[in-house]
Amino acid sequence: MSPKITTELLKQLRQVMKSPKYVQEPVQAYIVPSGDAHQSEYIAPCDCRRAFISGFDGSAGTAIVTEQHAAMWTDGRYFLQAAHQMDSNWTLMKMGLKDTPTQEDWLVSVLPEGSKVGVDPFIIPADQWKRMSKALRSAGHDLVPVKENLIDTIWTDCPPRPCKPLITLDLSYTGVSWRDKIVALRSKMAERKVLWFVVTALDEVAWLFNLRGSDVEYNPVFFAYTVIGMNTIRLFIDGERMMDPAVREHLQLDFTLEPEFKIQVLPYGSILSELQALGAGLSPKEKVWLSDKASYAITEAIPKAYRYLTPYTPICIAKAVKNASETEGMRRAHIKDAVALCELFNWLEKEVVPKGTVTEIIAADKAEEFRSQQKDFVELSFATISSTGPNGAIIHYKPVPETNRTLSVNEIYLLDSGAQYKDGTTDVTRTMHFGTPSAYEKECFTYVLKGHIAVSAAIFPNGTKGHLLDSFARSALWNCGLDYLHGTGHGVGSFLNVHEGPCGISYKTFADEPLEAGMIVSDEPGYYEDGSFGIRIENVVLVIPAETKYNFKNRGSLTFEPLTLVPIQAKMIDVNLLTQKECNWVNDYHQKCREVIGAELERQGRHEALQWLIRETEPLIRVQ
Amino acid sequence: MSPKITTELLKQLRQVMKSPKYVQEPVQAYIVPSGDAHQSEYIAPCDCRRAFISGFDGSAGTAIVTEQHAAMWTDGRYFLQAAHQMDSNWTLMKMGLKDTPTQEDWLVSVLPEGSKVGVDPFIIPADQWKRMSKALRSAGHDLVPVKENLIDTIWTDCPPRPCKPLITLDLSYTGVSWRDKIVALRSKMAERKVLWFVVTALDEVAWLFNLRGSDVEYNPVFFAYTVIGMNTIRLFIDGERMMDPAVREHLQLDFTLEPEFKIQVLPYGSILSELQALGAGLSPKEKVWLSDKASYAITEAIPKAYRYLTPYTPICIAKAVKNASETEGMRRAHIKDAVALCELFNWLEKEVVPKGTVTEIIAADKAEEFRSQQKDFVELSFATISSTGPNGAIIHYKPVPETNRTLSVNEIYLLDSGAQYKDGTTDVTRTMHFGTPSAYEKECFTYVLKGHIAVSAAIFPNGTKGHLLDSFARSALWNCGLDYLHGTGHGVGSFLNVHEGPCGISYKTFADEPLEAGMIVSDEPGYYEDGSFGIRIENVVLVIPAETKYNFKNRGSLTFEPLTLVPIQAKMIDVNLLTQKECNWVNDYHQKCREVIGAELERQGRHEALQWLIRETEPLIRVQ
Repeated sequence: MSPKITTELLKQLRQVMKSPKYVQEPVQAYIVPSGDAHQSEYIAPCDCRRAFISGFDGSAGTAIVTEQHAAMWTDGRYFLQAAHQMDSNWTLMKMGLKDTPTQEDWLVSVLPEGSKVGVDPFIIPADQWKRMSKALRSAGHDLVPVKENLIDTIWTDCPPRPCKPLITLDLSYTGVSWRDKIVALRSKMAERKVLWFVVTALDEVAWLFNLRGSDVEYNPVFFAYTVIGMNTIRLFIDGERMMDPAVREHLQLDFTLEPEFKIQVLPYGSILSELQALGAGLSPKEKVWLSDKASYAITEAIPKAYRYLTPYTPICIAKAVKNASETEGMRRAHIKDAVALCELFNWLEKEVVPKGTVTEIIAADKAEEFRSQQKDFVELSFATISSTGPNGAIIHYKPVPETNRTLSVNEIYLLDSGAQYKDGTTDVTRTMHFGTPSAYEKECFTYVLKGHIAVSAAIFPNGTKGHLLDSFARSALWNCGLDYLHGTGHGVGSFLNVHEGPCGISYKTFADEPLEAGMIVSDEPGYYEDGSFGIRIENVVLVIPAETKYNFKNRGSLTFEPLTLVPIQAKMIDVNLLTQKECNWVNDYHQKCREVIGAELERQGRHEALQWLIRETEPLIRVQ
Repeated sequence: MSPKITTELLKQLRQVMKSPKYVQEPVQAYIVPSGDAHQSEYIAPCDCRRAFISGFDGSAGTAIVTEQHAAMWTDGRYFLQAAHQMDSNWTLMKMGLKDTPTQEDWLVSVLPEGSKVGVDPFIIPADQWKRMSKALRSAGHDLVPVKENLIDTIWTDCPPRPCKPLITLDLSYTGVSWRDKIVALRSKMAERKVLWFVVTALDEVAWLFNLRGSDVEYNPVFFAYTVIGMNTIRLFIDGERMMDPAVREHLQLDFTLEPEFKIQVLPYGSILSELQALGAGLSPKEKVWLSDKASYAITEAIPKAYRYLTPYTPICIAKAVKNASETEGMRRAHIKDAVALCELFNWLEKEVVPKGTVTEIIAADKAEEFRSQQKDFVELSFATISSTGPNGAIIHYKPVPETNRTLSVNEIYLLDSGAQYKDGTTDVTRTMHFGTPSAYEKECFTYVLKGHIAVSAAIFPNGTKGHLLDSFARSALWNCGLDYLHGTGHGVGSFLNVHEGPCGISYKTFADEPLEAGMIVSDEPGYYEDGSFGIRIENVVLVIPAETKYNFKNRGSLTFEPLTLVPIQAKMIDVNLLTQKECNWVNDYHQKCREVIGAELERQGRHEALQWLIRETEPLIRVQ
């Protein structure tokens, strides 16, 4: 991977930063955040402005360009990748390390007195704006909104904003109609005494209307905003797609309806003027509910006195708790996904060992091919991380021709992949060896497995936040002086974003919402040895009620049920490092894989993969 | 315990809330926080205003009185106690329960429009003021400072502010002279580019000058503020005590000194006017460092532009990391403390079983008597929690004649006690049975023990925050559906406050500072069965470097060493619920108790207690 040469681009950007055509006054610094106008994690090509200006295309990072400097903040998952992708114009700011300055502190240290710092007000979340604006102001500088995006002005071949057809989901997938979701939302609004609710996150719009799209790769969402009143529904969305009869039928656009369920369709680009008009017409006590992560532009459209901001919207919280139809869909999706992976691993064992012709890219493509054979397959849920040997230590690695390694019997292979099916979203990581792993590799793998089991089998009282479980995943590693620099789990959508809030399992957050039955998260501890290998074991797990002897004085308790049912390679396990309980967990898990996935492989007539599954799920035996 | 009758007092308070003599405009609500002007947890009798007005005298709680209502917010440790101590004028607000409103939300729900809410600006921390003021303002009310404390105006027999003699500590106790501490502080100030530092916490003043006092029961502190400049030291303190030749010698008050070490002694009451004068004379870039927990009055004395606020001061952080002299002192103090407890438990076994004449108060007094026989004993470090049977479930119980139960062979006895010695502070809890515990009692005790061991034996990388260890203490309880409603550990001072920041082990905090070698915390999981018994096992533990196989890529790792060396009652342990590792931990711990405390009992000629110790430290044997 050679870095992107950005000298000319930075020169152009520095010119427009001073050009009266684009800025009222010259800006001495320009911030290029990662996100789009919806603060999405995964973004459309036209929104990849930070990657365009810097070359670094990881999922998280913020670029800041001043007249003299160009700096990039990103986290531990991307230190190696960012260093590889950026040229010497850029300084890498490693977030999470003690000596790395915050963006605000760095700006204050490099800017001349009384500087203006520009940012696109649609791209920066209101809470970040507030924090940064305050810090800059207290040092004598100003954060200013720059209406025209300055990257767009120099990005001559910027692709157009996608506007793909929509998919309608019926009750068998969603369990609840969009009308009932609106009723529930209005009842939450009434509870909090707000009259309006602005939905800005793309997955929240999609979930609310039981629609899906494909405007953003991997995330089945579409560009739209919606504003819900107590008696009105306004949907801001562009394109031909609203002429699709299935969509019109689904949204009942051509029906005579009670007025409170009549959807008014407006152009995507009119959200700001419509919100400003709404804001101008509010009378005292007419509050508007917004996420505090909504963009500065959207938030400012509503006068401060009328805003009701919360870190998580009621849609975000409702969406996280899957209903019976969604849970069943997720189970089905995970069974199909496991079938595809059994096929893949069986194929890999046949190809890698004798022939040595499988590269990371070929393996990733083959995984997609097997998945695409499954019913209701839509697309992948994220870029497949297919990595062997040292590439496995790059936590969010994606194979490209320059880095593509060939799988061999001498290296550990890590595959982190998943798909979108119409009935659910998957995300699974398995780490395997096609030859003979070293004692050290097995040792590390086994500690990671112990951590995985400690979370998966944990029992905890109702109301516990996920971050309190994070250390369970690390304890076995810690005992030997090993650790990993990422969280242990994230929320997973139901045929929606593979990363979703408001719950997760990470030492980094404190404001996560408590776990409750029906939530779905990943359990994915790992261990990474720079320059040599990466290990991760990831299942998607469902939060379910647990039965305990004393039941927390009727407070009730929770545990996890793995939805992912793919064998964990026995060859990598040092069985004697497991306790009997842990060994039983693995055997029970493999027994379930054999039963559930075996039946489906049988049904699909995939006999060779079935034989592989049976071999891979032989019970472990611990020497006492 | 009968509740305090507060009808007349509340009537008087409501009168002064409207009296032009005390308030510029009538206040519709008056807040009575727990603390004193230094935000101390333990306070002098003259500062117990919340207890005076309500009757509830637990260590944490905030009272709010409006024209119609009187409400008390406190946490899970005090629900039972507060309910017992308050009359029907008061509503108990149980913090931490889902349906309990915050103080702000409650005020907004009960106040008439445009109300004024009064509070003593010296008693409310600036960060709380800010939060509450903002919430009230956004609902159309005002938080206003009331100069004269309104409780003091109706508290006719309020005791005077204490002003007791000081104790000077030499280098053998402190390891570092006060001059060197000032030098280190000034270097931290230079790093942050601040010119002034205001010390408001009493234990920080005491630590900085290597002085101790006894103005507040249990906490060896004295009422004072100090303001450190780069070339000046101002100490605000009252009384005869500054005439003590030992104190004058210690502080070198009568010496010809370099001007930057010359201490200027000023009256305690002049802090505000001196700070206001300092604040008025500041020029741009002259910042003043304050804790964000300093009182609103102190904080407001410095104009906002000149304030540099941090959650933890550099003194708080330096004080938490004990040096070699302090650590050795803490070890000595814990050995003496263990001797006293061996004497006590031996005495209890002899008295309780055959005679049945020992009450909770007698046992607490006896514990104090044995401690006071030890060298350098100063006082207790907190009110002894001596509780048997159902009283044990009241987490911060203190026996009083109305509740005093007699120890018996039928009930669990919980003793949580500690002392201040000139060389260190102790805090230890042991739970015992003098007859035959039930299987259920043993089961609960053993889960608590497993949690205690899980924390004590935990190994974790350098830089880990204590809150990440909290769940280790709960895991065994959680597995059976049991839990406890308090944190697992708190920082412990060195002949200072038994509770000190900035570290601890609790699910409730996120902003704790990372643990580092030399810090001292408690490890005290518990289990409480309302109306029947309480169990807690508490050691004070020292953070020490750990040796691990792979050492976190040279990041290094930490673990704990118990300083408390008092046997854990074997009779209460269901050995077969322990793993072999846990069993070994108990046996190793008891072996160390036997060696270290045994030698000291021998040296002090306490032969009967030595025999008790030897009996109580017999190795456990696990049936395989």
